[in-house]
Amino acid sequence: MGFARKEYEFLSEIGLSSRNLGCYVGGTWKANGPVVTSVNPANNQAVAEVVEGSAEDYEEGMRACSEAAKIWMQVPAPKRGEIVRQIGDALRTKLQQLGRLVSLEMGKILPEGIGEVQEIIDMCDFSVGLSRQLNGSVIPSERPNHAMLEMWNPLGIVGVITAFNFPCAVLGWNACIALVCGNCVVWKGAPTTPLITIAMTKLIAGVLEKNNLPPAIFTSFCGGADIGQAIAKDTRISLVSFTGSVKVGLMVQRIVNQRFGKCLLELSGNNAIIVMDDADIPLAVRSVLFAAVGTAGQRCTTCRRLLLHESIYQRVLDQLLDAYKQVKIGDPMEKGTLLGPLHTSESRKRFEKGIEIIKSQGGKILTGGSVIESEGNFVQPTIVEISPDTDIVKEELFAPVLYVMKFQTLQEAIEINNSVPQGLSSSIFTRKPEIIFKWIGPQGSDCGIVNVNIPTNGAEIGGAFGGEKATGGGREAGSDSWKQYMRRATCTINYGNELPLAQGINFG
Amino acid sequence: MGFARKEYEFLSEIGLSSRNLGCYVGGTWKANGPVVTSVNPANNQAVAEVVEGSAEDYEEGMRACSEAAKIWMQVPAPKRGEIVRQIGDALRTKLQQLGRLVSLEMGKILPEGIGEVQEIIDMCDFSVGLSRQLNGSVIPSERPNHAMLEMWNPLGIVGVITAFNFPCAVLGWNACIALVCGNCVVWKGAPTTPLITIAMTKLIAGVLEKNNLPPAIFTSFCGGADIGQAIAKDTRISLVSFTGSVKVGLMVQRIVNQRFGKCLLELSGNNAIIVMDDADIPLAVRSVLFAAVGTAGQRCTTCRRLLLHESIYQRVLDQLLDAYKQVKIGDPMEKGTLLGPLHTSESRKRFEKGIEIIKSQGGKILTGGSVIESEGNFVQPTIVEISPDTDIVKEELFAPVLYVMKFQTLQEAIEINNSVPQGLSSSIFTRKPEIIFKWIGPQGSDCGIVNVNIPTNGAEIGGAFGGEKATGGGREAGSDSWKQYMRRATCTINYGNELPLAQGINFG
Amino acid sequence: MGFARKEYEFLSEIGLSSRNLGCYVGGTWKANGPVVTSVNPANNQAVAEVVEGSAEDYEEGMRACSEAAKIWMQVPAPKRGEIVRQIGDALRTKLQQLGRLVSLEMGKILPEGIGEVQEIIDMCDFSVGLSRQLNGSVIPSERPNHAMLEMWNPLGIVGVITAFNFPCAVLGWNACIALVCGNCVVWKGAPTTPLITIAMTKLIAGVLEKNNLPPAIFTSFCGGADIGQAIAKDTRISLVSFTGSVKVGLMVQRIVNQRFGKCLLELSGNNAIIVMDDADIPLAVRSVLFAAVGTAGQRCTTCRRLLLHESIYQRVLDQLLDAYKQVKIGDPMEKGTLLGPLHTSESRKRFEKGIEIIKSQGGKILTGGSVIESEGNFVQPTIVEISPDTDIVKEELFAPVLYVMKFQTLQEAIEINNSVPQGLSSSIFTRKPEIIFKWIGPQGSDCGIVNVNIPTNGAEIGGAFGGEKATGGGREAGSDSWKQYMRRATCTINYGNELPLAQGINFG
Amino acid sequence: MGFARKEYEFLSEIGLSSRNLGCYVGGTWKANGPVVTSVNPANNQAVAEVVEGSAEDYEEGMRACSEAAKIWMQVPAPKRGEIVRQIGDALRTKLQQLGRLVSLEMGKILPEGIGEVQEIIDMCDFSVGLSRQLNGSVIPSERPNHAMLEMWNPLGIVGVITAFNFPCAVLGWNACIALVCGNCVVWKGAPTTPLITIAMTKLIAGVLEKNNLPPAIFTSFCGGADIGQAIAKDTRISLVSFTGSVKVGLMVQRIVNQRFGKCLLELSGNNAIIVMDDADIPLAVRSVLFAAVGTAGQRCTTCRRLLLHESIYQRVLDQLLDAYKQVKIGDPMEKGTLLGPLHTSESRKRFEKGIEIIKSQGGKILTGGSVIESEGNFVQPTIVEISPDTDIVKEELFAPVLYVMKFQTLQEAIEINNSVPQGLSSSIFTRKPEIIFKWIGPQGSDCGIVNVNIPTNGAEIGGAFGGEKATGGGREAGSDSWKQYMRRATCTINYGNELPLAQGINFG
Repeated sequence: MGFARKEYEFLSEIGLSSRNLGCYVGGTWKANGPVVTSVNPANNQAVAEVVEGSAEDYEEGMRACSEAAKIWMQVPAPKRGEIVRQIGDALRTKLQQLGRLVSLEMGKILPEGIGEVQEIIDMCDFSVGLSRQLNGSVIPSERPNHAMLEMWNPLGIVGVITAFNFPCAVLGWNACIALVCGNCVVWKGAPTTPLITIAMTKLIAGVLEKNNLPPAIFTSFCGGADIGQAIAKDTRISLVSFTGSVKVGLMVQRIVNQRFGKCLLELSGNNAIIVMDDADIPLAVRSVLFAAVGTAGQRCTTCRRLLLHESIYQRVLDQLLDAYKQVKIGDPMEKGTLLGPLHTSESRKRFEKGIEIIKSQGGKILTGGSVIESEGNFVQPTIVEISPDTDIVKEELFAPVLYVMKFQTLQEAIEINNSVPQGLSSSIFTRKPEIIFKWIGPQGSDCGIVNVNIPTNGAEIGGAFGGEKATGGGREAGSDSWKQYMRRATCTINYGNELPLAQGINFG
Repeated sequence: MGFARKEYEFLSEIGLSSRNLGCYVGGTWKANGPVVTSVNPANNQAVAEVVEGSAEDYEEGMRACSEAAKIWMQVPAPKRGEIVRQIGDALRTKLQQLGRLVSLEMGKILPEGIGEVQEIIDMCDFSVGLSRQLNGSVIPSERPNHAMLEMWNPLGIVGVITAFNFPCAVLGWNACIALVCGNCVVWKGAPTTPLITIAMTKLIAGVLEKNNLPPAIFTSFCGGADIGQAIAKDTRISLVSFTGSVKVGLMVQRIVNQRFGKCLLELSGNNAIIVMDDADIPLAVRSVLFAAVGTAGQRCTTCRRLLLHESIYQRVLDQLLDAYKQVKIGDPMEKGTLLGPLHTSESRKRFEKGIEIIKSQGGKILTGGSVIESEGNFVQPTIVEISPDTDIVKEELFAPVLYVMKFQTLQEAIEINNSVPQGLSSSIFTRKPEIIFKWIGPQGSDCGIVNVNIPTNGAEIGGAFGGEKATGGGREAGSDSWKQYMRRATCTINYGNELPLAQGINFG
Repeated sequence: MGFARKEYEFLSEIGLSSRNLGCYVGGTWKANGPVVTSVNPANNQAVAEVVEGSAEDYEEGMRACSEAAKIWMQVPAPKRGEIVRQIGDALRTKLQQLGRLVSLEMGKILPEGIGEVQEIIDMCDFSVGLSRQLNGSVIPSERPNHAMLEMWNPLGIVGVITAFNFPCAVLGWNACIALVCGNCVVWKGAPTTPLITIAMTKLIAGVLEKNNLPPAIFTSFCGGADIGQAIAKDTRISLVSFTGSVKVGLMVQRIVNQRFGKCLLELSGNNAIIVMDDADIPLAVRSVLFAAVGTAGQRCTTCRRLLLHESIYQRVLDQLLDAYKQVKIGDPMEKGTLLGPLHTSESRKRFEKGIEIIKSQGGKILTGGSVIESEGNFVQPTIVEISPDTDIVKEELFAPVLYVMKFQTLQEAIEINNSVPQGLSSSIFTRKPEIIFKWIGPQGSDCGIVNVNIPTNGAEIGGAFGGEKATGGGREAGSDSWKQYMRRATCTINYGNELPLAQGINFG
Repeated sequence: MGFARKEYEFLSEIGLSSRNLGCYVGGTWKANGPVVTSVNPANNQAVAEVVEGSAEDYEEGMRACSEAAKIWMQVPAPKRGEIVRQIGDALRTKLQQLGRLVSLEMGKILPEGIGEVQEIIDMCDFSVGLSRQLNGSVIPSERPNHAMLEMWNPLGIVGVITAFNFPCAVLGWNACIALVCGNCVVWKGAPTTPLITIAMTKLIAGVLEKNNLPPAIFTSFCGGADIGQAIAKDTRISLVSFTGSVKVGLMVQRIVNQRFGKCLLELSGNNAIIVMDDADIPLAVRSVLFAAVGTAGQRCTTCRRLLLHESIYQRVLDQLLDAYKQVKIGDPMEKGTLLGPLHTSESRKRFEKGIEIIKSQGGKILTGGSVIESEGNFVQPTIVEISPDTDIVKEELFAPVLYVMKFQTLQEAIEINNSVPQGLSSSIFTRKPEIIFKWIGPQGSDCGIVNVNIPTNGAEIGGAFGGEKATGGGREAGSDSWKQYMRRATCTINYGNELPLAQGINFG
């Protein structure tokens, strides 16, 4: 079926049409739930229709997935790595199209759309290497003729619930590692980015089919809260990786814990950049611009708070206001655009309401502060002067709104940085080693990401990604994040004939 | 003040008297809560009185602890290790007395009491080494002139809530590591083992004082659910390590999660031993005896289910029944005793009630099944033939009751092993490598502890201790358990003048 | 230029012609040394001509390489990984042709030829992952305001001297890791496999060129002992990885050590398979066949000694003799062939001479023992009954000659296994855990590779490959072998204002 | 037997008398070699006599040690750790006496003498922890039903040859780790510090005896080059750890390699401190003083070259000359002394000769340059202005002689730093992150120890100690140095019934 607009025709190159079935269950595309329309946030017009999954689709998918899990966990890890390598290669051949789709459906600018897909490719490459390094340990036993092994085994099935702002990269972080670790993946993408969910799934499914593996190793549903809740409650799913708001995250956690499942939470951030008096100011200004305006302020790592040392407060602010003036707003797929629309008209309304609250709490709008009249969900990039003690500053307003604050000492700046419930990302700009090491040390930032002279956003996959406190404590991507996708067994093997007891105990 | 009985006089050597203040707050012993009596489970007579903490005591202790945390986290880790080394040495000098106290107040036999204290000493030695190995990572950055460091910083304050069955070892697992990791420790021992809580605290306090460190680095409360709840709710406590029942554990988890804190749960086990047809039967029988009768069946790793291959079913059972007959029951401090009393008269009642339910669900008592008339809380070591499908078999009855079942294939045995909500410990007896590796692999036991030819209990400290599913997922003692006591920060430091972005993104 | 035979024409698909320049120096193919002829060992007829490098070629290459090293070591490791990924993909597209060339020029059977190339591809995939995991450590310092980092930096240039028997896989082991570690590679292939050297180099060079990197990052020479010695003496080459005989290896080591360089030696093996009385005999026989006859006995991991428990001695021997009878000898590129020619006519002569010595030392030829009259270098697969105490048994005869010996106890078998100067690979066939753990433990095999129920050969890349004693002690491929390709720096950074000293020393 | 002087009587508290047998072989003190006199370097008068070992003593000791090795390697590592813990405690009780003996016999000042013993105690504590963490790996196998284990097994016997300048700490680095790794230790101390060798050995022997272990686990010889050579040649000694000169080190290496043994070399350093224009100059001056004058310039990490940025050249030099004037020279055991004697009168002669060469090569003596007339081996602390291109600057003159040089750029300073054959330690003083990370990165210092804002000497045990190039490449103490004391085995266990081959090869 043809698309409404010619510029959407590239979507057929990644398996999409104007109406799409939204569930990949047991190797079949089907869907018996409500029909939803995928909308272009730049003009709020339809791109294509998607049929979401029903409860029956879900159950059918999970049954197939459970069967597939028994097989997949027995495939040697390096062989699983080879499958993930092929997924990376499949993505490489469709990098441009997928990137454009991300830009089209989510609304972020094209370089960021392509960057997001590149990140999954990087994750694939990384995971292939990992597939030969999911190492357990041989630990010295205190008992003769005993071997102590720490084994890492697959969990079985990992549920991944992702958000609209990174409609495929977060799946990439989770699925690449979950798969090499021997788990099947059940994915529910965001309800407003179903085309990306379908396109990604088709590429992955293609690889599984080519290798004659059970297709249900990767099971995917377009759908809303119903499907999400089904995943949270499903005892067949050992780990639920959830990306989204603190509120929903806590709910998911409660449900999953109740059934003794594991959670990996990537919840809200409320990320600050501190600029010290010795900072490289042009570097800081460019970083803040990228961190506050990039992805229209809809990254979990978006910089929302700018803490400026009093001595350079005005200077930084002036340069930043100047930079904001030059931000090109418009069609995210157009070359040169830095600020696209918010993802939905709802988001735009929340922005408007947020600005009102800001004002009512004494915030002073230095630039921006209004929505932009147009077909799309565009708003002005906004800078607000406000006290760190206001309530609004403790919350995550998912829009390009930056709160600016003044401080006098490093100590004070760190206290403000740490004074919000969230603990995802944070940055300082300075050239002094004593400040750098204080900042990354026991009495520095309390976040999971603690940067120096770079923005709060734009993480590399080699490190662990995630945050503390209300951000949920999960870690994805690099370092030893893979351990969350496996279960650890401490195994002591007695290969002798005696029964010596630990701690030298005698019994009987 | 003198003790009621002469045989309790050794308690004065570890700082106890007939009436004791139960809270160590900011370096002072005080307590303004209810007065409780510590009772000898072997005769239900008073040993000494303890004044528990009040809400005010708690708040005063936590304020001091918060201040101490700022200092302690700045002490270099190897210096913290030296303090823990001294704690180990202090325990060494009082090993016999502490071991006797554990036996006296908890009711376990003396060798187990001493073994429990030895385990803390081992943990101290281990942690000293660890204090120079709490290593972060230097991870290659994809960006020129960028350094990526994974730093591990202290959490601040760790709350430790322990249970009566290991009244001090579990504190040792947590505190030794929490301390070298730079955290202050707040301990609430079990309400029925306050003397151990006080004696342990005095030894630790002595070391802190000798080193002129803030005494509130270690803060300790005798108390009940009130204090426990206060710890769970306290936002100053970043991590709550809880050992106890699934029911209470889930509650603690919900409260702690709600305030965005971390939990480390060590909840119930329901541990099976599988005996294959090729097993070394005398080894298996001795192991089952230790695992089912040791600590009067009150270890979280106690063997509660015995799965026997049909071909050796009767043989093993006969030998086991024979062994049970020879179990010497009596005063736990007496040489030769293998089975002491249950910890409380409540426990004895639960045992009686449990036996009733067992019978009502078709369980056949092969030996034991009754309480023993005496002053103390003694019960008979019990073996029950029962179907794995009954409800009672899915629960943890904290007493020396062993369920025996028959199986035909390895597959079936593993399924039974994995069919309970709990996932702590498990063992198989066999000499076949293919069975051993299947058992410890993806489709084997789903527990955190997976043994071969040794009992379910009696773990070494070098491995990680803990379990999956309803057991809570926490890991204590060895391996990289220390990571749970620290917060991880992924730090990217730009020391150049450019601002290259990850994934090769261009922005502006 | 066309090839003499039509069946060689596939060589043009991998950049070869009938006459080839043998050095890739600074991005140019040139060569001013002697002209050598590459010969097909199956018929001793010319395949193509190669011009080897001269001393001037070497010097020119090394100058370019030194310049390239300054650039390459500054490329971020994950970017280096991306280059290695592309090398892997380049190899994938030419897998069949390269595999056939290996079979043609070296003489191993086609499945082994292709397997060898596949191994490099695997190494590439593995190294890509590694490029984000070449982690240093952040180690706790005992001094306040001090950070201790263990950094891993590139060495600069790694020289790789490989042998004829794995004419490209060994390059792959070394080069993939050396490159991601930030080193330039200087390769000297075996003098008798120059076409493989050239074909491999062309594929790698193509990738470097496509990425606009200095081509001298990979520098390659066809040549003989002169070039080898130049590499050994060259102070610009920090690490020399040498694969070959003990004699030459010791010489290389002496020269390199004298100039304070590092060596990574992979020297001779003399590998035993032990078959216990409880072994799966058909599995053992198939393993011995592959290990003793595969690659015509010219693997460093070839099984040369078969130790049979007296109780199954005759049974194993009978089955083995039977299997030997069915070995198809002939053109290695033909389907079904199991035994191709020895690599050179020299090798055939050494075989003949070896057989003489064997006989003179009391060896009894059970099968084989003769050369096969033909144009090629074919010899019979040979089994010899001989005492473990003879001199010949302590040496590595590079041909399909298997010494069979009898033993009575495990202890005796291990002693025989360990009684040779070499310490590369070893295997035992048994199903008893107590034997398995003894074998891999402190008093078991003294080799670097210690297998159970698989042959001595056929290692996976995820583990470290290499051996002890006369085998040289180097480790290649997986595990932490990469550390050999980097230099470690222990860095202590004082970011405070004080100067506390380690061990609490006061000075002045 | 009483000592000549009353102030030596403390020696009897650590088992010494005026005449001592110098070998501890198989648990017996004996010695049949030459008698040597231990001399106080502060006055060149005898302290006590020692009988050195003969070839027969050596052989007897090694035979006992070989027997002991078989037992010791079977003791579980954590039990070995417990022995090392007890050694640490034994040292703690004699810390003052041993420290004084080090000061007396070696000549270093008392705080350094005590610090040296403290370092061994720290190593003991560290090694105890390590004894439960000598972890191998469980590596994912690419083959179904295969387990890949990387095992670390003891080497057997480790020979340790130490130098006079750290007469016991270097033994501590090696022995603590060698012992927990399961090796017996054979120690030859320096010929001029036999009393320390004996005293240390007695303490260790006492612990072994108390634990009923074979005393030959620790075997120790007083002796000279003969014993050293015997160790180098002895095939029973798998690893020889040698500390000393480059010349002797290369010789040892050649002999050990020839017999296929392993070497761990800690040879000469020639360590530079670079002071950048932004440095904290008082911090730098204090550091240089400690690094150049401490231990009378006889540490391998002594700062021998001072590289000053031209802009602060004179300022630093003036302050340094001022500091040198205040250095108190005299009896090392006297409070306040900073500079004791050189170790021998030979050393003093070498100093004199060195000064002559310095002058002849254009060096300008800024302070010092003469020996001090006295009974002891005292020399003046000396600063020399000299070109980095002179020959003498490339050598290690083991005395308190500091070469000062001027540079203009960081690049130049690093080049000078790296321009000597040795590669042990190096420091920079700066506060700029870009310089710090350049310095510790691929194009920075080429040494094994790369410091910032601390001296070249005074390493902590948690990091790996050792150097590159002519320094020999060994690493001792912390990090994963323990791997050098074990042999690695890559073990693949097939527990299935099939024989799949790596790289997917089909054979037959």
